[in-house]
Order: sequence, then C-alpha cells, then structure tokens
Amino acid sequence: METLTEVVSKTPLLTGGSAEQKREEIRHYFHQTYTLYESLFDCINSDEAYYLRPEPLRHPLIFYFGHTAVFFINKLLLGKFQDGRLNERLESMFAIGVDEMSWDDLNSAHYDWPTVAETRAYRARVREVVDRLISEMPLTLPITQDSPAWIVLMGIEHERIHLETSSVIMRMLPLSYLNAQPLWAACAESGPAPQNSLLPVAGETLTLGKPAAAATYGWDNEYGQKAVAVPSFKVAKHLVSNGEFLAFVNAGGYGEPRFWTEEGRSWLSYTGATMPRFWSHRNGEYVQRNLLQEMPLPLDWPVEVNYLEAKAFCNWKAEQSGSHIRLPTEAEWTLLRNRLEADQPDWETAPGNINLEHFASSCPVNRFEHEGLFDVVGNVWQWTETPIDGFPGFDVHPLYDDFSTPTFDGRHNLFKGGSWISTGNEATRYSRYAFRRHFFQHAGFRYIESDSAEVPVEPVNTYETDALVAQYLEFHYGDHYFNVPNYPVACVQALMALAPSLNRGRALDLGCSVGRASFELARHFAQVDGIDFSARFIQHGFQLKESGQTRFAIPTEGELVEFKETSLEELGYAGLADRIDFVQGDACNLKPRFTGYDLVFCGNLIDRLYDPALFLSQVHERLNAGGYLVLTSPYTWLEDYTPKAKWLGGIKVNGENFTTLDGLKAALMERFELVGQQDIPFVIRETRRKFQHTLAEMTVWQLK
Amino acid sequence: METLTEVVSKTPLLTGGSAEQKREEIRHYFHQTYTLYESLFDCINSDEAYYLRPEPLRHPLIFYFGHTAVFFINKLLLGKFQDGRLNERLESMFAIGVDEMSWDDLNSAHYDWPTVAETRAYRARVREVVDRLISEMPLTLPITQDSPAWIVLMGIEHERIHLETSSVIMRMLPLSYLNAQPLWAACAESGPAPQNSLLPVAGETLTLGKPAAAATYGWDNEYGQKAVAVPSFKVAKHLVSNGEFLAFVNAGGYGEPRFWTEEGRSWLSYTGATMPRFWSHRNGEYVQRNLLQEMPLPLDWPVEVNYLEAKAFCNWKAEQSGSHIRLPTEAEWTLLRNRLEADQPDWETAPGNINLEHFASSCPVNRFEHEGLFDVVGNVWQWTETPIDGFPGFDVHPLYDDFSTPTFDGRHNLFKGGSWISTGNEATRYSRYAFRRHFFQHAGFRYIESDSAEVPVEPVNTYETDALVAQYLEFHYGDHYFNVPNYPVACVQALMALAPSLNRGRALDLGCSVGRASFELARHFAQVDGIDFSARFIQHGFQLKESGQTRFAIPTEGELVEFKETSLEELGYAGLADRIDFVQGDACNLKPRFTGYDLVFCGNLIDRLYDPALFLSQVHERLNAGGYLVLTSPYTWLEDYTPKAKWLGGIKVNGENFTTLDGLKAALMERFELVGQQDIPFVIRETRRKFQHTLAEMTVWQLK
Repeated sequence: METLTEVVSKTPLLTGGSAEQKREEIRHYFHQTYTLYESLFDCINSDEAYYLRPEPLRHPLIFYFGHTAVFFINKLLLGKFQDGRLNERLESMFAIGVDEMSWDDLNSAHYDWPTVAETRAYRARVREVVDRLISEMPLTLPITQDSPAWIVLMGIEHERIHLETSSVIMRMLPLSYLNAQPLWAACAESGPAPQNSLLPVAGETLTLGKPAAAATYGWDNEYGQKAVAVPSFKVAKHLVSNGEFLAFVNAGGYGEPRFWTEEGRSWLSYTGATMPRFWSHRNGEYVQRNLLQEMPLPLDWPVEVNYLEAKAFCNWKAEQSGSHIRLPTEAEWTLLRNRLEADQPDWETAPGNINLEHFASSCPVNRFEHEGLFDVVGNVWQWTETPIDGFPGFDVHPLYDDFSTPTFDGRHNLFKGGSWISTGNEATRYSRYAFRRHFFQHAGFRYIESDSAEVPVEPVNTYETDALVAQYLEFHYGDHYFNVPNYPVACVQALMALAPSLNRGRALDLGCSVGRASFELARHFAQVDGIDFSARFIQHGFQLKESGQTRFAIPTEGELVEFKETSLEELGYAGLADRIDFVQGDACNLKPRFTGYDLVFCGNLIDRLYDPALFLSQVHERLNAGGYLVLTSPYTWLEDYTPKAKWLGGIKVNGENFTTLDGLKAALMERFELVGQQDIPFVIRETRRKFQHTLAEMTVWQLK
Repeated sequence: METLTEVVSKTPLLTGGSAEQKREEIRHYFHQTYTLYESLFDCINSDEAYYLRPEPLRHPLIFYFGHTAVFFINKLLLGKFQDGRLNERLESMFAIGVDEMSWDDLNSAHYDWPTVAETRAYRARVREVVDRLISEMPLTLPITQDSPAWIVLMGIEHERIHLETSSVIMRMLPLSYLNAQPLWAACAESGPAPQNSLLPVAGETLTLGKPAAAATYGWDNEYGQKAVAVPSFKVAKHLVSNGEFLAFVNAGGYGEPRFWTEEGRSWLSYTGATMPRFWSHRNGEYVQRNLLQEMPLPLDWPVEVNYLEAKAFCNWKAEQSGSHIRLPTEAEWTLLRNRLEADQPDWETAPGNINLEHFASSCPVNRFEHEGLFDVVGNVWQWTETPIDGFPGFDVHPLYDDFSTPTFDGRHNLFKGGSWISTGNEATRYSRYAFRRHFFQHAGFRYIESDSAEVPVEPVNTYETDALVAQYLEFHYGDHYFNVPNYPVACVQALMALAPSLNRGRALDLGCSVGRASFELARHFAQVDGIDFSARFIQHGFQLKESGQTRFAIPTEGELVEFKETSLEELGYAGLADRIDFVQGDACNLKPRFTGYDLVFCGNLIDRLYDPALFLSQVHERLNAGGYLVLTSPYTWLEDYTPKAKWLGGIKVNGENFTTLDGLKAALMERFELVGQQDIPFVIRETRRKFQHTLAEMTVWQLK
C-alpha cells in the first residue's frame, strides 16, 4: 500500500449470485482491513510508544494492536466456528476489561502486556486462521446473522472501528514516537474560515432504522424502525470551523458557566479545558495536532470538540443571535443525509472527506458541497442532541449482546456522518455510533436553528437491570413458561367473567407493580388508575404509557443476562395509554381523591401490605355502590412485609388453624358479599432454568 | 348423680343399626359427660379456688372449667358445623395457649379470667348448642372421621381427658377449698403392702395399633399398625405399692444420683423432691393426699410417681437384685393387656379400678387379679419405657392436627392401663396417653425383669420442623406437583438410560441431601454411599434406613403446617436399606476411602460447592475404569455458596458469555467423554400455593 486511494475499499454486500465469488470478496476485504490496521500502527517508530497512556480513559495502544485479532478468535469460539484457543494468555489480556463499546472507565488492574513482536506474531497466526476459516466455512447467499461469514464481517467491521479509535489515540501520542508516512498524508490545504449561514430545511415525517433486509452488514442498534415527524428548521451550511469556534474561545466561552450544561460544567472543572483538545497555544499562535503532524490552526477546517463543548458553543451562539440554536437531532441529521442518494457500497467516489478516499486528516469545510450544504457526510463526525437508543424492534446479536446495550443509558450521544477515517460500516448511511458526551473522536458539529425552544429528544429506554424489577417486567410483559398464561391478563379476564354486572367506568389497579393489569383493564374501563408503593416498579408502567416501550435485562445464568423489550403496540394496547394514570401511593394510606371506582383490583397485594386489616376496613370507601373488590394472592405471608401480628391468616387463632380466606371473610363479610372464587396460576422467572410457580386465589367481593 | 355407679358410662360404638338410636345414645353420652365434669368442679367450695395455681405448669382451674366447653365450639366452627361464635372473648381466652396436649410450659401472659358464674352460664349455652347440633346433624352409620358426630365425640372424649387432668390439679389444691362429696368417695380399704414377686411371661410377636375399622372413637395416635417381637420376660405381679416404694425412699434413693437418669437428676435438683408428690411427712408419719381428703400413707395402695422416680426405683431395684429390672415397654405392657378379653364398651363390670366403676381413688394393689397378675388395667396409670410415637400409617385428624404431633419429640413417655378416673376412650384397650417424664398424674408403675441389659426402645421419629429440611423431605418423598415426576427417581431413571454400559457395583450419591436418590440407586447397585455436607439433611436418610420411616411438617400457609410421613415400605424400598450407607462428608475434601465407584451421581450439587473446579479436577480418582460421573443442576450460582471467582460458568470470560456447560466441558473434557445430556424438571414446594419449578440439566460423563 502506497497511497490512500489504493486502500479504499467498499463494504461487501450480503447478497450476490456466486457464493465462491463472495468468499473471495470477503477474503479480500479481511486482508485489506487487517493490513490497513497494521499499516496505521506502522506509523509508530518505537515499541515504547505502545505502552504509553496518552488518553487515561483508554488502554495503551498495545491493547488495541492485539485486540482486533483476539476479537476474531473469541467470537468464532463463542459461535462454535473455531475449536480451541491460539494463545490463552493473549486472548484473555486483549479481550477483557476496557473497550470503548462497553464504555467502562479503565480499571486499575495491572497488565503485564506482551511485547510488540509477540503481538505481531499472534496477529499473523490469527490472519491464517481467519483466512482458512473463510476458505472452509459454509457459505450461502444472502449472508444472514447466524452465518459464520457474518462473524467474519463482524470481526472486520470491529477492526475498522478500532482503525478510527486507534488513530484518535495516536493523535494524542507525542510526535516524536511517530513517523510521517506517505500513506497517511494530511490535507495540505487551509485558509481563512468561510462565513457560515443558515439554510431552510422543509420538515417531513421520515423513518429511521436500517431495514432488516438491507444488503450490508449492520450492528444491532441500526435495525428496527422508528417514524419521526420533523418540523422545518434551518441548518448551518458548513460544519463549525476552527475559525468560527475561535470566536467562542476568544469571547471567553470556556470560562462562562451559563453556556455549559451541568455535565459540561463538571467536565470543565475536572479537566480545566480552555480550548479544543487538539489545539494548543504556543508563542501567541494556535496550533492544531493532526494524526502525524502539527500545523498552525487551519481556520477553515472543522473544529473537533466533544458534545459538551459543541453544546456550549450553540448556547453562546443562541444568546448572540437571540434564536434557538442547537445541535440537530438524529432525525434532523437524517433528513439532511437523505438528500444524498449515494451510499458507501455504491458510490464511485465518496461525496465527502470519508472512507479514506481523500485525505488522512480533515480538510476545509467548504470543499465538499451538495445542494448548497457542505460536508453532509465526512470530514469529522457530527454530534447530535440524541442519546443513542434502540429503535422499536431492536434485538441484540447473540454473539455480541453487549455491543450497544450498555450505551442505552442516556449518557451516550450519537454522532453521525463519519470522519475522514470512517470506513466500512462506519461510512454507510445507517451507521450509528455513540460516545459519552465528554469523549473525543475526530468529531465536530453543525448547528441548526429551530422554531421551538424545546429539544425534541425522548428519554432513553434504559435497560432495567435491578434484578427484581426486571423479574417483574418479564412476569408482566415477557414470555410464558410451563404453558401458564400471562397472570395479570388472566386475572383481568377472570374477574370480568366473575363480575358480569360490573360497571365499566373507573377501575383502580392497586399494587399495580410494573402495570400490566392496568393496561389490560383499560380494554374494559374508561379510566384506570394504577397505584404502587414502589416508584422503582411503577416507573415502567409510566414509561410504557409515555414512550410506548420499555426494556429490561433478565438473568439467564449466574451474572449473564438476556435483553428484552416490549411495546404497547406489540401488546395490543396501542391507543389505550390515555385511559391510564400511574401514581405512586400507599394502599394502607391512600389519598382521598382515589375514590368513585367500580372496581378495585388488588393483584398479589394483600400479603405485601404492612396492615392488611386496616386496608380492608377502609377499601369500601373507594367503591361506587355495587362496586367490586377483587383480591388475588397466594397468601405468602412474610415478616419482611407484614408483622406477624398483622397477618390476616395462616396463623393459629384460639389454638385452631385460621386461613387467610377465613381472615378475608372475617374482615369483609359485613360490607361485602363473596360472589366468586377461583385459582389462577402464575410463573415468575428467576433464571433461564429456575422459576417460581405459584397458585394464587382470586376472590371477588361485591359491595352490599 | 348421687353415686359413682350412676355415672358409669360406656363409650358409644360408631356402628349400629339405627341412626336415630345412635343420635340419642350420643346425646346421652354428651350430657352425662358434661354433667360429670361439672360435678367434679362442684367439689370446690369457693370461687377463689378457681384462680389459684397449685401446679405452676398448669392454668388455674377456671381455665379448665371453661376450656372443655369452648373446645366444642372451636372444633365445630373449624369443621364448618357451626356458624359464628357464642362469646368471642371466652372462646379466645379458654382456647389459646396452655393445654396439656400441646405441652407448652405456661407463658407469662396476663389473663383477665372471667367469673365462675359467667363461665358456668357460658357452659350452659354450649350445652344447648351441642344438644341442638346433635338433634340436627346429619348422621349415617358407621360414624366416620369426617362426620359431625365424630367432632361431637371428640369434644366429649376431650372433656373426659380433662375430667382426669382437672382431678389431678384439684388433688393439689388446699383441702380447705374442697368439700368431700358422696359421689367422689375414696376407697376406705388399706393395709400392709403385699409382697411383690415376678411372674414369667412368654414372649411373642404382636401387632400394636388400633384397627382403622375399630368400633370406637380413637385419637389419631392410636391408629396404624406396628408388629413387634417381644422376648420373654418376667413381670411384677403387683403395681409398686407405697410400701414397696417406701423402702427406696428409706434407702435414701432420692439422694443417690446413680439411680437417676440425667433428666431425673436435673428434675431432682430443680424440685428438691425427697418423696412422691402426693406424700407428705408430718409428725413422723407419712400422709397421702387423695382427691378430696388425706389419709395415713396406705401402704398397699399403688405409689404415684412420675417416670423419673419410677425409673430411679427400678435402677435401685436392679442394683439390689443384680438383674435387669426396668419399666415395661408399650409392647410388653400390651402383651399383658392382651390377656384380658374385656374392653370398656363391652365389659359388664370393669376388670379393675377404672372407669369410675369402683372408687374415686386408688385402692389396694392386691384387689383386682387376673390370672395371677393384679391391676392389668386401672388403679393408676403405668409408666412405660416407650416415648410416644405414631405407628406406621399415622395420620392426623384435620380438625385436631396438634393433638399428638407435638408429643412425638422423644420427651413424652407413654403410660398405659388407665386410673380409677379414666373413662371413655381413656379406659379402652388401645388408648395411648403420654406426658413429659416429670409430670404427675394418677400414675405409678409396674416393673419387669428382662434377660437383656438393653431397653428395646426405638428412637422417636420426631417431626422435622426445620423449614428447609422439611421442604427437601417433601421434595424427595412427598407429593407430585404440576405433574412433575419425583426428581431423584427421575434422575436415576434417566442416568440408567443414558449410561447403559454402567457396571452395577458401587455407586456414590454425592450431595445426597435427605437421601432419595441413594434408595433409588440401591435398586440397581450392590452398594450405595450417600454423602452430604449437612448432618441436618443426611440424618433423615439415615433414619429412613434405620427405622424405615421419617416424619416432617411442611408449611401450608403462614405458620400453619401439614404433617407428613413416609416409609421405606410405602416407597417400595423395603429390603434395600442394607445396601446403603449414609455418611457426612465434604465433596471438595472427600476421605480417600470413598473410591472404587462405578457411578458418582451429583444431584443439584455442583452449584452448591465452595470450589466446584477443585471437585471436578479430582472426581476421576473416585471412579473405576470406564465409570460414570453424572451431574444434574439448574446452574443457580449464588455467592452464598460459591464465591463468584469460583463459579464454573454464568460469567463473562474474556468479555464473552461463558455458560456452566462451557465450564463443565473445560473442566472435564480431558479425562471424560460427554455421553449424554438431558433436561429434568423438578418442583420444590414452599407453601400450599408456592413452588420452585426448575429445569435441571443432566450431563453424563464417562471416564476415558
């Protein structure tokens, strides 16, 4: 490889006529990627540099040099496409712990790294193993996610991600450790910054998400579909240039807390930053560090900042202009991207500074134009307002189930469009990458002006990992086990059958937990209140009502989890959300306003109250005349919840066995008539193999 | 009622030709009992006496006066034969807490007892209620245990028990509180004690236990069948008289610890007793207290002592005679009782001082003779060496499930034969009453001489009440739930199918818990070792092997329990016990002698070890060539059992999901071949309504 254009590659399609041709195409793509990755590391002129830590949030480069090779082996082993390890020590050391994709801060474990030579030799062995696998693997077209070819592509695309992230770390190494290389030559052009201006963009409704049948490899988070209505807005024709950003720096922007988010202020105070990460100020001049060299600050190149800095600039700009200046959302950016027909697998030449087709650095922001807009893709990544989240229909790949899920935490923002070194999947239309908002990559931004002060960003559906809450989410919204029907649904069906004269006005779902019975009741009642003592639980009912979906991770075995999600649409509750209110409250001390119900349903509540008799003595006040109280419970009394002196039954009274049903009758018979009684089973999954299987008793009581 | 003979009654038969005649017979028996009970209390001349506590281990007499009436109401309510309470306060106060049948020491709760008049009025109301119930209850013959008539009989027999126990308490009241009554006249005869001597008794095998079809009411502990081989022995022709016992007292027996059991020494030191409870020593003379009067110690009357004193006398006597003198066992006593054909429902006149047919006190020990043996029944109860236990087939009555079960604790010894005031069920052939060994009743003893130093008493099958152990007993030996077959049995069947070339020599059941798989393996193997870490669990396997049965109480709801038992015979393991050894041991540190097995079976063990990898690395040393290791587990890893660093799987290894099956393969593949794999479900009951339902994985490994 001598020049960048020689290394330009296109992502192989999953489809095609000839499997053998596809096999060779994949082999070529593999070797080309592997070689390209090593050629980047060839810029390092001293093995010592492999062990430095220019970025304290990252491993030293030796890790990344080994890591992309080890990844092939570990995933192939996991997929049973490979027998046995090549090198247990390296495959452990280069795998565990810190990975940008799992976003952990570096732990302080001591790493006894191998030599560069040993690592290089290991890489060579992996190259042979993968090459042989490519020769031998069964291959039919199109390639699907369970095919060994998919795992090979996963390894290749994973290495292409690290080509970029490693280049960012190298950009932080002292220059003395690096040799300039013809292959990795920076753009030579620079000049004064162009004047930026705003262009109008017509709003429209568009659909986000990569189609399942798309012809290129995709990461889990790209798939699914989400329709978004985007109002009209105005967009800056250029990415923000160093020159434009310098005005913010010169205006004292880094010292003015009001422009910064709370997170931004924390970051400023922690780092003491006064300018972008790759700038420095020497002898009265600003200098920019590129991959392998420095240059006087190129004012017409895009500024490279993290999200927090980009957001502060927008807030400053908004104050200056008196308008709603901010970053685009993912949907707004996509609307701009949709103007470009071309996509990486198909284009003849990249329509921007991307895919290593033009430079091994940024270039002026006024060089690549499309319909008046510059740098729609390429040059630097463009931060968005949108924290990454899965689209409805999201599902993890079983061999890489933690690629995206840890980033669905509301703290990782998407950037879009790719940089000069974004290749492979990174350079495709649907690619979605997200980093913590304080991270640096080859990333900058473009701003927009909105008519509204509100930023149209939805809260992220984080994965519920609290084991008990997740257990209840699976119980309410997950799979059936042992052929036992969904319990909240079965309860509502049973009570509707046992109380046929029920009025269908207002229902109270008391002890609603994560809310399934409330939704099911909303099929039958005009209005449903779901009340639970625990905000941890009720927030999921609320989230389903508000966002239409919720996510959770349930244990499979030991610490391993399975990722699940559910949506109102899937559940058949679309359109019912408006009938339901979820409120936190105490059944034994309910606010007076919760009254006038035709039904009070208490699913698995009565044996979890601290004073069930008190509750039963007052519950009639909540009901309309002729209203129904429905209790279901397995009568599992536990001192953790109910002091023994307050148990309704399951005790000796006057020396005799006194059951909870005896206790319910004693407590309710004066005001209620027992009109129905039925056993209803339920199953709560604890792990893939362990379940609670319980038989609740439903009793239906009508107010006399 | 004017004389004792007027109050003599016979227990009604459960059978008969005319239901209406039976109804009147029961009505008569009820009123006769009720009146008799009240007539005993009529001996008290001052209401004040009702509130004294002459016996600190008992309630005052006011409790017993109300208690027998309340018992009718509480049991009828429990059986749904009665609606609503007559008096909630009295029915609570006269029911709870202390009852000889539950053997609790008195708690220190404050009782605000009602007046005697109020209690008497309450008794009168109960009399009417029961009388009306007797009129109205459905009645078919024969009366069975689920019939309301059975509950009426239960109440009557319960009152007859308290007729006797109340008479014991009254015997402890100061005489000033009591009036002599013609109806309750003591025997007037007394004289010098007869010389006692030993008669030979031919041994035989006899069957203990009341037949299920017997024609009289019985308490739960009387039913079931137990065959016992009784060797020949010699029996004292007389009960031990006051005169005979006086020699022991005069010999300083109460001050000589070597004659006393350890329990006896504790009792002596606690009470400071120097003579029998109803004796006193005044002005150089011994005096005996009877029910309503005192008399100079009647030397020819039976001595009345507790078990501890009787046992000390026997030990003294044994030392004197140089022979094996002791109390009879239940079986030995029964062999004597079998000489009498007559039983209470049938006899014309009682063949002893019993059933209130002769005296309201003891009488000389040489008055009632049968074939050379005196007082086979009656006069005073006769302590035995046998702690009460249920016979095989024992089952509680659902409306009185704690009549006997709390006494199956090895600390309650049976006494037999009845006293002068034993009536109703107490006076029948099969009656079995037991008290703690330090309690006093109208009870004495007869001694025997055995050829052997050993006392042929089996350890009592106490009810396992440790909730976790009981849960496992039900899991191994109890019912099926959700149609899931018994797990240890299913495991053994599955492994026999998956390892057809298995040699049938020796098997090791490692982590055998309460032992079911060991028994099941003994069907197939010549020798089985069952090893468990926990003595709490393994003792039940051991007990089943040794005694053929085991008992446990499992929770139904809250603190309520259900009593269960199982036996080798029922399980189909009769004759296999000799093949099995149960030993306590640690799977991770097994003694070297446990080796040479054709099979090592580890049911639900691997995820409960503190170092499973250590175990797996050594287990091959236990196996014969070609032997099998069979593991079943749901892989439920918990830090409580296994530090996370020692989990075999269910963890991330090199950042990837690593299952326990992966871990088993990694640990075993070098020495073993995986020859079979199968899921096996199991269900563990926690309450009547709550279960753990789990899917274990069985893996079958053959030693290479």
